[in-house]
Amino acid sequence: MKRTPEKRQAILDAAAEEFRDKGYERASMSDIGLRTGFSKTTLYGYFGAKEALLAALVDEATENGVAAMLEVLAGAGPHLAVTLERFAGRYLSYALSPSVCSLRRVLAAGAGRSELDLRCRDLGAARIDAALAGYLRAQMEAGALRGGDARGSAQQFRALLEASWFDRVLFDYGSGPGPGQVEEEIEFALAAFLRAWAPALPVATDAS
Amino acid sequence: MKRTPEKRQAILDAAAEEFRDKGYERASMSDIGLRTGFSKTTLYGYFGAKEALLAALVDEATENGVAAMLEVLAGAGPHLAVTLERFAGRYLSYALSPSVCSLRRVLAAGAGRSELDLRCRDLGAARIDAALAGYLRAQMEAGALRGGDARGSAQQFRALLEASWFDRVLFDYGSGPGPGQVEEEIEFALAAFLRAWAPALPVATDAS
Repeated sequence: MKRTPEKRQAILDAAAEEFRDKGYERASMSDIGLRTGFSKTTLYGYFGAKEALLAALVDEATENGVAAMLEVLAGAGPHLAVTLERFAGRYLSYALSPSVCSLRRVLAAGAGRSELDLRCRDLGAARIDAALAGYLRAQMEAGALRGGDARGSAQQFRALLEASWFDRVLFDYGSGPGPGQVEEEIEFALAAFLRAWAPALPVATDAS
Repeated sequence: MKRTPEKRQAILDAAAEEFRDKGYERASMSDIGLRTGFSKTTLYGYFGAKEALLAALVDEATENGVAAMLEVLAGAGPHLAVTLERFAGRYLSYALSPSVCSLRRVLAAGAGRSELDLRCRDLGAARIDAALAGYLRAQMEAGALRGGDARGSAQQFRALLEASWFDRVLFDYGSGPGPGQVEEEIEFALAAFLRAWAPALPVATDAS
């Protein structure tokens, strides 16, 4: 059997549809095979099990998005607000992408019922939080932000970025911000975050 | 047929299990009937359709919790931080309760596939945000908080309260804060919120 990237992609696309339609638990390798029209041998030649397919979908959905965020942090210039604004833009492109939204629903549905690899459930959040916490910790040490729990502050920034639309998108009762609203959303979240983590003012000494 | 609250509750419990095990789409009235042991006539005497069952479960999960939050806001004393801290405690009891977590997964799984009543999808969030926004708007007008988008600030407070555990709980790859940690979580979120929304300092006039 000759392996090709096209066949692999066709299998991944079929698996994404199958998971979306039936949920992870009820999805079956045979039905994924039927959707592609490939033989069982071909299918198993690419992916040995349903879990491997889900893991590959998670990798596909996260790898570019997460790499783009880490790149912003790694190449950060001197301006905290500019870096966080760029990071936020990449975070929202990632979190609002149809493949990430769809996987989030599949994973939420399987929660408590599937013994899935933790890597799958996390959808990149642990790597994103760790990298952002590292960046924020350095800013705290440099005095550009108040000192405190850097990991907690990273989770707060991500939560603020999702505050207005996460429920709506996850539960599909409204859309996320449109292209014109993303900048506004980011500005609102970033302003609150920067006020919350601004360096503490020195205590005023009474000079009168 | 004599209706009793016990029978109604038994049907709701069976429906909650059925939805959790199979998801909303695949859940069936006949299987819910089988779980209770009641006849189809009895079942339909209480709930005419699957959607009515889900709506009743949402009502059951939200009514006490949401009422408890609104009560805090309605009876708020003069201390903003005390009121928000009490509200936060009730919000976390609600959002971390097993029935709310379980419904969130059922709703996320059905997203994009079911024509569910919007009231079901929202899980009380719209009422919570509206009430909290009203309270925060009054605080802004009284000068206890900086002016701005009150609804946005309410969503930010809720997001900060969920920042460290929402993903973990929804996707079931870790637990929420334990009883001893809830106060710490609230304190961390509340402190950030109060710094973010503290009244703007008057511009210092140079008196030298």
